[in-house]
Amino acid sequence: MLTKTPHLFDDATTVTAGDSRWQGRTSDDYWAFVGPFGGATAATILRALVDHPQRAGDPLSLTVNYCAPIAQGAFDLDVRLVKANRSTQHWCVELTQGGGDVATLATAVFAERRPSWSHQPAQFPGASPFEQTLPYAKVAAPWVKQYDFRFVEGEPKFGSMATAAPPNAFSKFWIGDRVPRKIDVLSLVAMSDAFFGRIFHAKRELVPFGTVSLTTYFHADAADLVAEDIAHVLAVADAKIFHTGYGDQNGELWSPSGRLLATTTQIAYFKA
Amino acid sequence: MLTKTPHLFDDATTVTAGDSRWQGRTSDDYWAFVGPFGGATAATILRALVDHPQRAGDPLSLTVNYCAPIAQGAFDLDVRLVKANRSTQHWCVELTQGGGDVATLATAVFAERRPSWSHQPAQFPGASPFEQTLPYAKVAAPWVKQYDFRFVEGEPKFGSMATAAPPNAFSKFWIGDRVPRKIDVLSLVAMSDAFFGRIFHAKRELVPFGTVSLTTYFHADAADLVAEDIAHVLAVADAKIFHTGYGDQNGELWSPSGRLLATTTQIAYFKA
Repeated sequence: MLTKTPHLFDDATTVTAGDSRWQGRTSDDYWAFVGPFGGATAATILRALVDHPQRAGDPLSLTVNYCAPIAQGAFDLDVRLVKANRSTQHWCVELTQGGGDVATLATAVFAERRPSWSHQPAQFPGASPFEQTLPYAKVAAPWVKQYDFRFVEGEPKFGSMATAAPPNAFSKFWIGDRVPRKIDVLSLVAMSDAFFGRIFHAKRELVPFGTVSLTTYFHADAADLVAEDIAHVLAVADAKIFHTGYGDQNGELWSPSGRLLATTTQIAYFKA
Repeated sequence: MLTKTPHLFDDATTVTAGDSRWQGRTSDDYWAFVGPFGGATAATILRALVDHPQRAGDPLSLTVNYCAPIAQGAFDLDVRLVKANRSTQHWCVELTQGGGDVATLATAVFAERRPSWSHQPAQFPGASPFEQTLPYAKVAAPWVKQYDFRFVEGEPKFGSMATAAPPNAFSKFWIGDRVPRKIDVLSLVAMSDAFFGRIFHAKRELVPFGTVSLTTYFHADAADLVAEDIAHVLAVADAKIFHTGYGDQNGELWSPSGRLLATTTQIAYFKA
């Protein structure tokens, strides 16, 4: 079922090796309205770390601060191992273009995970099966076309489709790559930014919006994800507050079997 | 009611001005088991940014990665304004001691907030009033003595006090400085790391534990906090998963009047 040929997502998040300096370039396939899809940028940064010769362990946390728009074309990644301990690594990555200002600033922690007491208090949100859920058809930005969104709850409704119900920012949907691709840490981080802006849901209209800072925690390592062998996850997101131009989002990404793979939060700018 | 004299918290988080390099030192009053209370470290870093001559706007987000233990004594803060836009600033701070490796790596976003559509979907958790809630008496580490914890729900119970009920990591409590101090962004960030380790609650025992990465979003600016004029907040926290040595925490800090002031999440190491 999964494609064997290089996937658009892998093309879009390609990096060429360096020691501390890596190169990548934006992808028209993963373009948003005024810059690349932030999830593709985050995944590209994470790929540079995963592929780094000094990397040990699996991603535990990634924070990406979107400092300025990224223009179409090439960019440089300055990749720095800030501190390595026995079982964790702390990284800092700066994305620049043409020697200019930092456009994206990221920090990451990698860890070698060891067996421990295990407990998952969070409840699997539950949903109609992926195969029985209708794909979301109203696609605007190019990057949205790269995903198969299947809304279980909170499908965005705009204009005349909007109801008079109170604002609700909660969404639950299945998400997979449009051309199926096995879920790995790179797709998890991209999908953690693939929720539509909570403000679009709450206001039921498209308004100027941009993620300012995104943080994702990984609760499964690469081997776990290989074992899961899945091409889509159940995604839920909600917001707690919209105030003076900024709103938050918190989300979860679940395997179809009910395992919590990643949790994510972000603070985003909006104009409304 | 509030003290007019310098507060221990302000002593503990003092920084001396530099341009890109600032100095601070650990406080015995805010010591934890094997290093300073992470919330005091985060607040010290935030203070260097708030006090920085180039700073514009209020804190919007702060991520602190705890890379290595901080020893008792002096430390340096390398403070860098990575990118400034019309209404936002992106900062990076590295904490070192004696010219050694980075012990703490932080990124922050400051923003000038503007009037906008406002909506708070999150529900105020509600609680018995602060004055009618019993202080938590079982204090272990020095830093805990600096706070007045008043548990409404999920007071930690260890050993013979533990029940056979299923593991529960949820807590709700009032928290203020032991010597009352007006809530500002510095105390909010410290309090966002003042939740006891979720693993202590879930396992009902003290086990080796350490915050690895902490992210806090601020939903009120300095002027809002001055207007609130409060000395304690209602804090709630829970965990979603404990797995292969790491567990998450997500929390909220509320004004007594029901305003969401900050949201916070962290990933922490544990041994159990």
